[in-house]
Amino acid sequence: MKRLKVSNNVIRRLPRYLRKLDELSENGVNRISSFELGQQLGLTPSQIRQDFSCFGEFGQQGYGYNVPVLRSQIAGILGMDRGYSAILVGVGNIGHALMDNFCFSDWGFHLAAAFDIKPSLIGTTFGGVPILSMEDLVSYIQSHPVDVAVLTVPKDVAVTVTKTLTENGVEAIWNFTNVELTEPNSNTPIVENIHFSDSLLSLSYFISERRDENAIKAARSEKQG
Amino acid sequence: MKRLKVSNNVIRRLPRYLRKLDELSENGVNRISSFELGQQLGLTPSQIRQDFSCFGEFGQQGYGYNVPVLRSQIAGILGMDRGYSAILVGVGNIGHALMDNFCFSDWGFHLAAAFDIKPSLIGTTFGGVPILSMEDLVSYIQSHPVDVAVLTVPKDVAVTVTKTLTENGVEAIWNFTNVELTEPNSNTPIVENIHFSDSLLSLSYFISERRDENAIKAARSEKQG
Repeated sequence: MKRLKVSNNVIRRLPRYLRKLDELSENGVNRISSFELGQQLGLTPSQIRQDFSCFGEFGQQGYGYNVPVLRSQIAGILGMDRGYSAILVGVGNIGHALMDNFCFSDWGFHLAAAFDIKPSLIGTTFGGVPILSMEDLVSYIQSHPVDVAVLTVPKDVAVTVTKTLTENGVEAIWNFTNVELTEPNSNTPIVENIHFSDSLLSLSYFISERRDENAIKAARSEKQG
Repeated sequence: MKRLKVSNNVIRRLPRYLRKLDELSENGVNRISSFELGQQLGLTPSQIRQDFSCFGEFGQQGYGYNVPVLRSQIAGILGMDRGYSAILVGVGNIGHALMDNFCFSDWGFHLAAAFDIKPSLIGTTFGGVPILSMEDLVSYIQSHPVDVAVLTVPKDVAVTVTKTLTENGVEAIWNFTNVELTEPNSNTPIVENIHFSDSLLSLSYFISERRDENAIKAARSEKQG
């Protein structure tokens, strides 16, 4: 497939399309127009058509999109059919939560192993995934395919562990540590951050914005009243 | 403060600025140029100046930004000084992880109570936060200020619980359920989603993109070689 440089915003919308298409499939919907899809996602039909046009032509004029076909095309664009392997480093609360609730295989990933320093965890398995010692991390990476490391270690070791991972060839980090890992001017891995605080602060912004607007409206109508 | 409609991308960058400024403060940095700040964040100086210009003038030509002053201005824009109250609904793995590791007060929020249906949890406290029965949710909301509900319930009750929350006046939902809560054409709450899968799939896209590029490069050099 020919890949053009696609904007970050489009890439970020692809997983949302995928979730919506899964929901439609579950509800027995087999075909959807860009108008209807847009309505359900809060996007304009033309934005949807434009997004998909980055990757070729998906719909058919007057027919709309075939839900399972579109779903599999988007899954392919996202790389869900490439059989990526992941390891999880740091089995604390978040690590546990991910191993327990997050179904990696639903998204095309195989969670192969987890690593921790706690003796009580090492040698056990959790949800079928073996928990190994951090001491075995390097040898494991060197002898197994690891496409992504899920980083759920404590903050203070985030940078050191990342260094170990990337020096041993791990290309991509799914970062839950809230530590900024991107160093400028170095051969950096691909880092995808889950920053809980960024998300909460955006929410905080949107609440404040709405309340300020309401306060202004209230002040105006008082003036007029 | 006068609020202009600020683009979503700018809003999403504000928490990143805040984190970087906190890091600078911790390292004893008191002043920074937009050039240096840009370098550290992978942004251009002009983008940074433009972002801040949405909210007034922050820096001083030739001097740069005063780190603590800029930090407090951004915190104000984000509403961190407004004393928002939060409740957490659903004390499973993710709920526990948030109560245990995520410091709401660092971001200006007070986590006042949590709710669950498990008898073994009800009546206990976790990190100083009382866990109450779901049966008391409505009466609690009606008698306490609740600005945000952190939604960490199982998927299948996400929509019902959201309905209860919003019908009783909760304006904003921090949604960890991976269920799309925004209904078009209704008086919706502000929903901020943490979609783990969206983030992992974006990462999957970026890995695939890089590998495809490398494969094309390799094929080209083979052709030429």
